Amino acid sequence: MNGQLKLYSYWRSSAAYRVRIALNLKGLDYSIEPVHLLRGGGEQHSPEHRARDPQEQVPLLQHGHRLIRQSLAIIEYLDETFPENPLLPATARDRARARSLAQLVACDIHPLGNLRVQQYLEREFGIEQARREDWTRHWIKRGFEALETLLTDNPASGDFCEGDLPGIADCCLVPQVYNARRFGIDLSPYPTIVHIDEACRQLPAFQKAAPENQPDAPSAA
Amino acid sequence: MNGQLKLYSYWRSSAAYRVRIALNLKGLDYSIEPVHLLRGGGEQHSPEHRARDPQEQVPLLQHGHRLIRQSLAIIEYLDETFPENPLLPATARDRARARSLAQLVACDIHPLGNLRVQQYLEREFGIEQARREDWTRHWIKRGFEALETLLTDNPASGDFCEGDLPGIADCCLVPQVYNARRFGIDLSPYPTIVHIDEACRQLPAFQKAAPENQPDAPSAA
Repeated sequence: MNGQLKLYSYWRSSAAYRVRIALNLKGLDYSIEPVHLLRGGGEQHSPEHRARDPQEQVPLLQHGHRLIRQSLAIIEYLDETFPENPLLPATARDRARARSLAQLVACDIHPLGNLRVQQYLEREFGIEQARREDWTRHWIKRGFEALETLLTDNPASGDFCEGDLPGIADCCLVPQVYNARRFGIDLSPYPTIVHIDEACRQLPAFQKAAPENQPDAPSAA
Repeated sequence: MNGQLKLYSYWRSSAAYRVRIALNLKGLDYSIEPVHLLRGGGEQHSPEHRARDPQEQVPLLQHGHRLIRQSLAIIEYLDETFPENPLLPATARDRARARSLAQLVACDIHPLGNLRVQQYLEREFGIEQARREDWTRHWIKRGFEALETLLTDNPASGDFCEGDLPGIADCCLVPQVYNARRFGIDLSPYPTIVHIDEACRQLPAFQKAAPENQPDAPSAA
């Protein structure tokens, strides 16, 4: 199908960051429609955005008249719709490994550090910021310990999570490492993660997707 | 590839429940290897299980000598490896919708109610059980409101999430409804979810996968 690609995005959303990397790796033209997650109580809760996404989240991809929700579903959709520069490996076994690494980040680390979760911990449980940050660091560290083991134990890991080309797992890893740095996590126990993150961030597709290079990033970022 | 299928499972794990449904819908023979998440501090933390899965979780699928982690990656692997009785729709657009519904449950509801999260809230934040249950109910209700809207607004929803055959989204929906009932959530605001759950639970594939029908379920369950 033909149609313009528009990504509803927020510069610091790590799920939107994943999709920006994927779009860039595929070499696709797209526009960014910023949704500010903090301004005015959160633009994601506006009637306009809620009509697009009842979950009131980013990212959200518009392709022509289609709306695609959920970052990993968006990445798979892009890979199926635009076959050039594949983001998933060629065999079922390797795809399973790449998806499981991506889901380790997307299901088991990222949802626990999300803005809405932070807000609940603060408002309903009265957890102060320092302890909320401990919480976020805890889940990142737990996840990274497992991710490091899985990446180090498997000969498929190269400069990237799955061999010598960046793909869906790298789209998840780099934004999560960005978050880990934001929260001051010592990354020295995870040398393979650090190596892959560095290899990725040398590529223009990752650089262009970085939070600080987004149109809605504060200029002082 | 040939090879026996063995699922590391826990009767009440809703992520394992998803994979049991998928295996049954595919009509595959498999054995269950129970991993008791509560006994002795949690068998998932044993050295044997940690060697299989550094995340110390279930489900985990063994196919011959291969180990596949993460429930949605396992379901996609089964669908690619055993083409009969597909669990994903035929077009990229419909697959994107099915995956995004599955991920709404797997990324945005389920991780927040997980055992390890409950344990952190209790041990580190001292949150008592009643308020932990409020937390779990909150995320289920937030997710179900969006899921209900997405299912009701789309003509692709039928007796099942995606048309007239059960698939990957139903594999996620039914275990999450089971959890919602465990936590006493009033399901009347979600009639489409309830309808799909009922249609699914009339099928032997879903019945055989149910927690109470597992070999490791307490006989009094």
